[in-house]
Amino acid sequence: MTENLTIASRLDALEKRLRALEDERAIRQLIAAYGPLVDSGASAAAAALWEPDGVYDIANTGIAHGCDAIAALFDGPFHQDLIASGAAHTLGPAHIVIDGLRAVATGYSVVFAWNKVGFAPTRVAANRWELVRDVDGWRVRRRFNRLLDGAEASRVLLRAAQQLDPFEPPHG
Amino acid sequence: MTENLTIASRLDALEKRLRALEDERAIRQLIAAYGPLVDSGASAAAAALWEPDGVYDIANTGIAHGCDAIAALFDGPFHQDLIASGAAHTLGPAHIVIDGLRAVATGYSVVFAWNKVGFAPTRVAANRWELVRDVDGWRVRRRFNRLLDGAEASRVLLRAAQQLDPFEPPHG
Amino acid sequence: MTENLTIASRLDALEKRLRALEDERAIRQLIAAYGPLVDSGASAAAAALWEPDGVYDIANTGIAHGCDAIAALFDGPFHQDLIASGAAHTLGPAHIVIDGLRAVATGYSVVFAWNKVGFAPTRVAANRWELVRDVDGWRVRRRFNRLLDGAEASRVLLRAAQQLDPFEPPHG
Repeated sequence: MTENLTIASRLDALEKRLRALEDERAIRQLIAAYGPLVDSGASAAAAALWEPDGVYDIANTGIAHGCDAIAALFDGPFHQDLIASGAAHTLGPAHIVIDGLRAVATGYSVVFAWNKVGFAPTRVAANRWELVRDVDGWRVRRRFNRLLDGAEASRVLLRAAQQLDPFEPPHG
Repeated sequence: MTENLTIASRLDALEKRLRALEDERAIRQLIAAYGPLVDSGASAAAAALWEPDGVYDIANTGIAHGCDAIAALFDGPFHQDLIASGAAHTLGPAHIVIDGLRAVATGYSVVFAWNKVGFAPTRVAANRWELVRDVDGWRVRRRFNRLLDGAEASRVLLRAAQQLDPFEPPHG
Repeated sequence: MTENLTIASRLDALEKRLRALEDERAIRQLIAAYGPLVDSGASAAAAALWEPDGVYDIANTGIAHGCDAIAALFDGPFHQDLIASGAAHTLGPAHIVIDGLRAVATGYSVVFAWNKVGFAPTRVAANRWELVRDVDGWRVRRRFNRLLDGAEASRVLLRAAQQLDPFEPPHG
């Protein structure tokens, strides 16, 4: 009996640790899915990485509320012209903190655009992904994107990498 | 008995889930090995990431069939001049789908080259890695590389990120 | 009894394999923490990724010995001016080899800087992280950074990706 209890507790511990790695893997996979979706024009599928009422708050662009508004952003002329000319929305490895059903991922995005002569890194930004897990898996509740152009806003975002509570972006 | 059966089924499930994470890790490691090998002139070792009859289909360069042809590409004057001048073949985090003994990884590559004044991103491309697992572990069966210069070919490749069946690149 | 022995050995094997994945995850997380820390001015926290007597050997800059010297580097005018103007210290996915309590991670770093007109990749380098695990987790013992400007030093570093023994950088 004692032996089986010990076995049961070891199994419990293994399942819990494995689940933590699977959660981290799922979040990495979600972030890795973003670029291929937006660069190939799969706007609705890209927006579906967010919760139905999720938020995408993008430097120099604005705040899109909900999957429809986020998809509209990807379907809009700015993004469509960008990918028609040639663009790569690359996302680097993220720092990921998970606590139960919520998580925060912090990392860099670099957009490369083709200008008919060469490629140029047109946008380099800090990103914060606030994620939640529901029955369908992990989804984005809010993504913040701030250009690394010296503005304090980007440094505030990066400093919050360990903070799971909802981010309050500074004004300006 | 019932208890041990339950234990056995939990162990089976854990082993299966762990194997999935190990497979994903092995594929990430393979892709992470590519840059250091080609940038340091280890052409044969780089080519050995492919199966003996593997394929590397590269935009603006051609299709190399088999490890010898792939190694010859890395040993050729174009690549050798590039790394002698200074180059980094960087590969971002990939979206990875695994089904048993086969897998597909989709991600971005950016080649930075040193031009004696500064670094420039000379090639930005979408990459599709079709991989298989044999007794020696994961190997590349086919890698496709398409420049993100606005050509539809790159978008078709990115759209196939969830598709495990062999990719049929569009002509042109 | 035999059955329980088998169960125990399966549990042992699972715990060992899981630990290997957790170690790899911890090392990835450490490397992913670096950029957000140095780009947001959290110099002491960035330096604390190293062991107290850790080493950061940087191309064109010098060798910092110990956390205080490493923090001083991030607090110095060169780095502070860089992040005040706008900079991203991006690190790509690393090739990671772990052996018990020590590990080596090899990968690329690209520093993008904002020059008031656009972003430019000002430093592209090969990186070798020699890591050790103590009671507090993984820490950096030595990090080497070599520009990919054609110098043999960077290729020697990349060639050592599988080598766990301390790296001997070539002179010059």
